Amino acid sequence: MRIARIEHPDGIDHAVVEADGYRLVEDVFADEIRCRDRWVALADARLLAPVEPRTVVGMAHNTGPSDRLLPPQAFLKPARSVIGPGDPVPVPAGLGLVHAEAELAVVIGSSGTVLGYTVANDVTARDLQAQDSLWTQAKGQRGFTPLGPWIETDLDPAGAIVGLAVDDAVAAPADTGRLARTVTEVVTWVSGFLPLGPGDVILTGAPGTSLPIRPGQQVTASVAGIGELVNPVVEGVHQRRKERGAA
Amino acid sequence: MRIARIEHPDGIDHAVVEADGYRLVEDVFADEIRCRDRWVALADARLLAPVEPRTVVGMAHNTGPSDRLLPPQAFLKPARSVIGPGDPVPVPAGLGLVHAEAELAVVIGSSGTVLGYTVANDVTARDLQAQDSLWTQAKGQRGFTPLGPWIETDLDPAGAIVGLAVDDAVAAPADTGRLARTVTEVVTWVSGFLPLGPGDVILTGAPGTSLPIRPGQQVTASVAGIGELVNPVVEGVHQRRKERGAA
Repeated sequence: MRIARIEHPDGIDHAVVEADGYRLVEDVFADEIRCRDRWVALADARLLAPVEPRTVVGMAHNTGPSDRLLPPQAFLKPARSVIGPGDPVPVPAGLGLVHAEAELAVVIGSSGTVLGYTVANDVTARDLQAQDSLWTQAKGQRGFTPLGPWIETDLDPAGAIVGLAVDDAVAAPADTGRLARTVTEVVTWVSGFLPLGPGDVILTGAPGTSLPIRPGQQVTASVAGIGELVNPVVEGVHQRRKERGAA
Repeated sequence: MRIARIEHPDGIDHAVVEADGYRLVEDVFADEIRCRDRWVALADARLLAPVEPRTVVGMAHNTGPSDRLLPPQAFLKPARSVIGPGDPVPVPAGLGLVHAEAELAVVIGSSGTVLGYTVANDVTARDLQAQDSLWTQAKGQRGFTPLGPWIETDLDPAGAIVGLAVDDAVAAPADTGRLARTVTEVVTWVSGFLPLGPGDVILTGAPGTSLPIRPGQQVTASVAGIGELVNPVVEGVHQRRKERGAA
């Protein structure tokens, strides 16, 4: 089952994705997902990020089998850096090299269960990352966490093919079997120490799927069996600069 | 004005703190805070963490004047690690040295303004921090971010006295003037790159106010002009261990 979060004429709701529209659901985090008696046509809806997490965790040391030699390590991204399909990724001038990283993302349901999987783009300012050992500036900027297009509840996360394209440049597809730790290991390890709740998201690591991005380009992250997450890259403005400019 | 978040017989609300009770407010993030026609006696209310943030940011390199030589640096704590006054801080066995850090915390209002200030205890697993260069395990555990007892909207953050006591051990009080960067500089710098919204919290750094804690102790963090944040420390259980134990 595919569950999207959509903006439609009457509000914002989670909905089951059907061939020609969306069937709204009552509570996406209920033990059993029940549909409401309300249907929205494709043309009347806009896809949003499939969840509004309070916590977004990413996995470091998880890009390839050799990382298995390193202890597992996690980083946090700000919940408000999450954007949806089609939303612009702002890249401020002067930020240096910025990379898109396509990843399989786990969406947490109620009671710490896995609700399903979506596609994430873990945008990372690579030059800043070299200066900032805590990665907060490198990974925490506005719009640096595109998620979508929806949650797939029935995916087998063990060998999902992850893809990334920036305009005409295409990264070699890689599968989650290349990650140093399996998705199940990652979920177990993270939830062992970090409080997670409904709608929270774990980015499981980029299995080699990373490409530079710059304003004017379009970036497409994908996971076979889920779908494509497409975002334009635009020239961003640092809030601080805006304030200085306005002063 | 002091604004608490309280649990009372009819629900959970923000409320202005008065001498003998609480006056509920309509919307704590409105441009002007309006009181409702509803009052709750002290005895009928329990103080909760004064906000439910989506983002909790802490400042690294900000404990003393010499840190001014280092670039500013930020870390994130999970929003769900926030607990309120009186809530237990769980310290899992085998975690090694754990420190309490008393800090002045900034509470963000609407449109990125500062709503006010509260007291934070930035609990940190010091031994883990030495192994985990990203600090997520060291600072992101369940219950590691006590906040409270309320939001003070009228504090001058430039020279606030921060205190910390663990049972009979008392850290030398220090003032926020010792921080490498002023609270205003911190807010400006963080909001320059990181998306912040109503209820988000910035921990401004511990001006030397740090002490070890262990289960069975009581920790009191304080800021003169705000109040005292008191939490018991209890033996915590890692979720992972619990699951293993149950299997």
